Amino acid sequence: MTTTAEALDRARALDAADPLAGFRERFAATEQDIVYLDGNSLGRPTRVALERIRAVGDEWARDLIGGWDRWLDLPLRVGDLFADHVLGARPGEVAVTDSTTVNLYRLAAAALDARRPRRAVAIARPEFPTDRYVAEGLARERDLEIRWLEADPVEGPTTADLEPVLDSNLALVVLSHVNYRSAAIADAPAITSLAREAGALVLWDLSHSAGSVQVELEAWGIDLAVGCTYKYLNGGPGAPAYLYVRRELQDELQPPIQGWFAQREQFEMGPQFERAAGIRGFLVGTPGIIGLTAAQAGIEVVAEAGIEAIRAKGVALTEYAIELLDAWLAPLDCALGSPRDSDRRGAQVAIRHPDGRRLTSELAARGIIVDFREPDVMRFGLSPLTTSFEDVHRGLATLRGLL
Amino acid sequence: MTTTAEALDRARALDAADPLAGFRERFAATEQDIVYLDGNSLGRPTRVALERIRAVGDEWARDLIGGWDRWLDLPLRVGDLFADHVLGARPGEVAVTDSTTVNLYRLAAAALDARRPRRAVAIARPEFPTDRYVAEGLARERDLEIRWLEADPVEGPTTADLEPVLDSNLALVVLSHVNYRSAAIADAPAITSLAREAGALVLWDLSHSAGSVQVELEAWGIDLAVGCTYKYLNGGPGAPAYLYVRRELQDELQPPIQGWFAQREQFEMGPQFERAAGIRGFLVGTPGIIGLTAAQAGIEVVAEAGIEAIRAKGVALTEYAIELLDAWLAPLDCALGSPRDSDRRGAQVAIRHPDGRRLTSELAARGIIVDFREPDVMRFGLSPLTTSFEDVHRGLATLRGLL
Repeated sequence: MTTTAEALDRARALDAADPLAGFRERFAATEQDIVYLDGNSLGRPTRVALERIRAVGDEWARDLIGGWDRWLDLPLRVGDLFADHVLGARPGEVAVTDSTTVNLYRLAAAALDARRPRRAVAIARPEFPTDRYVAEGLARERDLEIRWLEADPVEGPTTADLEPVLDSNLALVVLSHVNYRSAAIADAPAITSLAREAGALVLWDLSHSAGSVQVELEAWGIDLAVGCTYKYLNGGPGAPAYLYVRRELQDELQPPIQGWFAQREQFEMGPQFERAAGIRGFLVGTPGIIGLTAAQAGIEVVAEAGIEAIRAKGVALTEYAIELLDAWLAPLDCALGSPRDSDRRGAQVAIRHPDGRRLTSELAARGIIVDFREPDVMRFGLSPLTTSFEDVHRGLATLRGLL
Repeated sequence: MTTTAEALDRARALDAADPLAGFRERFAATEQDIVYLDGNSLGRPTRVALERIRAVGDEWARDLIGGWDRWLDLPLRVGDLFADHVLGARPGEVAVTDSTTVNLYRLAAAALDARRPRRAVAIARPEFPTDRYVAEGLARERDLEIRWLEADPVEGPTTADLEPVLDSNLALVVLSHVNYRSAAIADAPAITSLAREAGALVLWDLSHSAGSVQVELEAWGIDLAVGCTYKYLNGGPGAPAYLYVRRELQDELQPPIQGWFAQREQFEMGPQFERAAGIRGFLVGTPGIIGLTAAQAGIEVVAEAGIEAIRAKGVALTEYAIELLDAWLAPLDCALGSPRDSDRRGAQVAIRHPDGRRLTSELAARGIIVDFREPDVMRFGLSPLTTSFEDVHRGLATLRGLL
């Protein structure tokens, strides 16, 4: 499969056999002559999402304040849908609201409070910036010790990386399930279990994971998670993020930001804060309904396609990309920056090259949209619902041509 | 002006002379046969807002990740527009982002840190719930003393109410500029100045103020403010809120939630948090672009109409409503729950009646939309850009009929 023509035939055969191929039709503006390999940064809109934001505008105009009869619980209703079809969580464990950063802060702060007098927080050095910055900020504010997991930047954090930071002073570990740069999948159940034995909580960031790989929060015994909906869930630019708190922990954890959407009898507006039971007690202020409606549409299409099929296609797309990388690009100074084992790799292939920044721009000029991460990583995001094998072929063939 | 016919003639004459009457055409679905007096809770959409959310959906579909070239600074660009035309603030002092509750928490926490070792926070008892709950939460988390301003629930907080809580241990005062229930306008410059003399910061909630009454943050020497855009600014359900930090304080204050949108070189994704200078250092996570676009449209129409004209009409509408209240409703067990002095009253009239809850429902059944606040307040929100004098007439005549 080393000639372009042979590889293209292979791509077309894979596309012809792809049970998810029809889902591409659900997305808007796919007729544009570009190869969009950046759905891991901002997913494409479904046609339904665009219809929904129009419809919610019309609802606002027509129903005015009465719209809130339906909108008030939307963060929890979308949360339940998402929990059931994407996260493997139970009803009443997920809310779709605010930004990932705000949710990270709230759950991390609540977890740190719950684990007092422990005074250390651990995070992996290759972690997504906002996760590290939030942890640093909490450490500064509360005078905590930060412990760095020296995880391999390609292979991601392991239980072996966790062991050196475990002791009776460790309160919290913050980790991504899928690394934003290499797409390494962490062994979330094993890491959670090891931390729990040492008395610490683990907060998982699922931003690069949910909607592209299997997530089973209940079965894996996960305590806390957050993530965004604008990548593999196609929720829209700055779409509301989500938070998950395992049911058994919901009473114990008390978020630091006490807002009126978490008040038990919200519209009595009583003199004191009395926190609502369940996941509602983790809401804060008025949720952004228009963005939430778009996120709902994105989550629904993922739910309809099914995570099992999405994951299978993600593996096949990245396997095919790595075949081409090995055959065409490895001799041209490119290296794989993602795990080679597909069980350990999400729906993205990192290709390293010393001129990665320039190549990313040149690819864009030829209609191949990937993104660049310092110092040398081109991220080829292969969002399964919107990427064809022929897209992968065209992306890698173009890169080969540039080199 | 005690007969219905006389009062109606008067309303029609006032509408005919209203320089803002034409702005009603800018709003969607105003042909519905309802009298909407709840724009102080959720403002009506402008037609442009509905077009913009469609357009931003199309931009998302077409430009994909490239849209962020324009969107990245949108919280600050809309902030500057808003600062200039509505808040009387300087460029680089306002960001439109997140929810009011999250913004309150962040600025309050930063202010409390900046005033250490002072350990008291003051808030008025009749304050909007989320403001009180946030203050309570911060006090619990940080073991601070809460001091209650015993402000008059109709007339709002005064410098005299502040005096008993001032001392060298007071770090922060949280107050609304316009009270959510009575529409009392607080003397923000005098209160800020008095608190400052005692070494405390004041954080103003402008949710019921900006877009309906004059706000001059720079001229008044205001240090900190937050507010929502979904009331008088017609930003949409759960539209992004805003925060203001006086330029001279921006370096001194350090918000507790450190996110990647406040990082100096955001996309270098460097190993440590290095906070951006200016108001950008107060951003957190990815802003919700679709909602922000609607908020921008709402702010633009307020900017175009001009706060001076909006304020003049708000005074005239509430004066007219109080005339009818005095003439028709006072003898029927209704009482004014707002300041009688129009200089001290925002664009809303609170009408108290022991059966307020039932009356609110019966008004709604007759197409008059107001809202109810425990225990006895019907809020007649007279949002100047979308309310006519004839609307006020119809609302109060219907209430009179019910009584």
